[in-house]
Amino acid sequence: MEKLLRFKKEDLTGYAVSFMKKFGIPEEDAKIVADVLITADIRGTDSHGLIRLNTYYGNRLSKKMINPLTPIKIVSETDTTMLVDGGNGLGQVVSYKVMQKCIEKAKKSNVARATVRHSNHYGIAGYYSMMALKHDMIGISLTNSQPLVAPTYGKTPVLGTNPISFAAPSHKKYPYILDMATSTVPIGRIKVYEKKNEKIPLGWGIDDDGNMTDDPKKVKSGGPGALMPLGGTDIMRGYKGYGLALMVDILCGTLSGGSNLTDIGFPHDYSKESNISHFFAAIKIDAFRPVVDFKKQLDYVVDTLKNSPKVESHDRIYIAGEKEFENAEYNEKHGVPILAKVIDDIKKDCANTGVPFDIKPIS
Amino acid sequence: MEKLLRFKKEDLTGYAVSFMKKFGIPEEDAKIVADVLITADIRGTDSHGLIRLNTYYGNRLSKKMINPLTPIKIVSETDTTMLVDGGNGLGQVVSYKVMQKCIEKAKKSNVARATVRHSNHYGIAGYYSMMALKHDMIGISLTNSQPLVAPTYGKTPVLGTNPISFAAPSHKKYPYILDMATSTVPIGRIKVYEKKNEKIPLGWGIDDDGNMTDDPKKVKSGGPGALMPLGGTDIMRGYKGYGLALMVDILCGTLSGGSNLTDIGFPHDYSKESNISHFFAAIKIDAFRPVVDFKKQLDYVVDTLKNSPKVESHDRIYIAGEKEFENAEYNEKHGVPILAKVIDDIKKDCANTGVPFDIKPIS
Repeated sequence: MEKLLRFKKEDLTGYAVSFMKKFGIPEEDAKIVADVLITADIRGTDSHGLIRLNTYYGNRLSKKMINPLTPIKIVSETDTTMLVDGGNGLGQVVSYKVMQKCIEKAKKSNVARATVRHSNHYGIAGYYSMMALKHDMIGISLTNSQPLVAPTYGKTPVLGTNPISFAAPSHKKYPYILDMATSTVPIGRIKVYEKKNEKIPLGWGIDDDGNMTDDPKKVKSGGPGALMPLGGTDIMRGYKGYGLALMVDILCGTLSGGSNLTDIGFPHDYSKESNISHFFAAIKIDAFRPVVDFKKQLDYVVDTLKNSPKVESHDRIYIAGEKEFENAEYNEKHGVPILAKVIDDIKKDCANTGVPFDIKPIS
Repeated sequence: MEKLLRFKKEDLTGYAVSFMKKFGIPEEDAKIVADVLITADIRGTDSHGLIRLNTYYGNRLSKKMINPLTPIKIVSETDTTMLVDGGNGLGQVVSYKVMQKCIEKAKKSNVARATVRHSNHYGIAGYYSMMALKHDMIGISLTNSQPLVAPTYGKTPVLGTNPISFAAPSHKKYPYILDMATSTVPIGRIKVYEKKNEKIPLGWGIDDDGNMTDDPKKVKSGGPGALMPLGGTDIMRGYKGYGLALMVDILCGTLSGGSNLTDIGFPHDYSKESNISHFFAAIKIDAFRPVVDFKKQLDYVVDTLKNSPKVESHDRIYIAGEKEFENAEYNEKHGVPILAKVIDDIKKDCANTGVPFDIKPIS
């Protein structure tokens, strides 16, 4: 287990806001980015948290590869739809604002869908789908991303890990939050095995010849090798994961007129814009049936699943999002956990970023 | 290879229509059911075609467990949404009519979503999503179904194979048609292995103790054993397939106030109604950007995928729906293929159904 430090949420948020402002990001926008990143850490999705502050954002901002002003342009709009150009700004900023607009539209028109092009990495997909919950709506959030996944029978990365997030409100239970990459695992998971010098399970990745490999060193971001889509091989129906990834890319990149597949830039490739696209939807439950009835029925669904018979080795059946809510409750109380190494890296980067990290951990 | 007979499409349609009318189904409705079933056979999805004519529909109709008049009731409706009670009628009839209404609504309001409760099996999910294509819309079709799939760490069937279908129009290429169960394989695939006395791959199903099994006899509809969600084990991220299945069940059963999970009846259980629920959506592409631009970009996406480097053992990368369109082109020309055994069964059932099968195959 790597060393964890715990910080006050306000302290980390304050740092991330200062960091973003240093790159010319307006305070309101900086607060959005900070909240998306730190929400990831609080929920235990640390791969998408503060670890990316400089690697995904600071570095690109300092090289002028992200527009700090996020000059959003509405390309087309109706009562129920919106196509937005993200102006090569921060993915979190345009996504937050567009999901807000979706919710406003759904208040009046019951459903709304929006697609965004010319953007950058937006962090955890679930942040935006969850925004719908307090309005008693179902929220959907999708994004394409840099090519890391091979299609079935392909041997090079062509598709992104293109996540799907779906959030639905419940009554007394945790809301249902699906937030899943459409690859078997994200590339970060492969790197964890590489660092530990452990083999990866067959079905996670392929080598340069397209053969399944248990060697994490043969599955690299940008190739050689590639991630496998959810399912893995054709016999395990990996083409379904591939099909879902393509569905996400069509709703994000194609519906928006943005980029698809291999045209999307890597966060560490400073020679081209990321050109990432997103898709959002909001559904007002009340338009179909009374919200409280829906919520109570979702509680019943959760109970039915959790009370169903379990295998001997496990005494609990999980619902998507449940672990993350439990993490959040613990971390809100005991402090936001950040790997010591991430803090070390942020401190090392100070010379370049010019934003000293002088926050003390609380444990 | 089992023996195949080929028939004229009009002949098979005529038979299916007569069959349905015998059970008191109005001619217009019978034509819808016939078209959904025979479209499945034409596209090569023979598990959902004429093979189900009596097993899923005739038997239930004769036992008064499906209402032949499909007395649809609109429970709530807005310009963009609809909740429909299917009146325990035919899933195909209510689904066809509701998807049509979605398309009409989307013509005016750009997007529409509808949920249907109190219905029966609706055949191939892709039939309804594809209805959107000729209107230059994206179509979505989901349904829940009888419990066959165990959640991760569960050992009994709780979830349906809850398919997702997504259809998007293209310019010169085939449209993109995703139509996938959220389990690794459907129960019919297990039965095929059982008949051939072959082992199933590990990751398709579990036995009564919840352990993965290679014995198809241990994975039965209604238990013992269960199908595994797409992905399979937790290490292969089977909880994502489980999460997708639950998303489908929420949009179908929970949003509609219909049944979820284990409350859904089996087609061969004549003691209770099926209480299956569906969900449909239509998105007018034109509301976002010019349709022709979208279609051309989808062609480009298809080309990029198909032209990407392949593994040595395969010279082709497929796009979801492509094989089915090729099947359809061949079968429209050479006749609809039906297994000789399916025809034998239909003939044997004549004594009960009272609809003699006297059509001659064309090859």
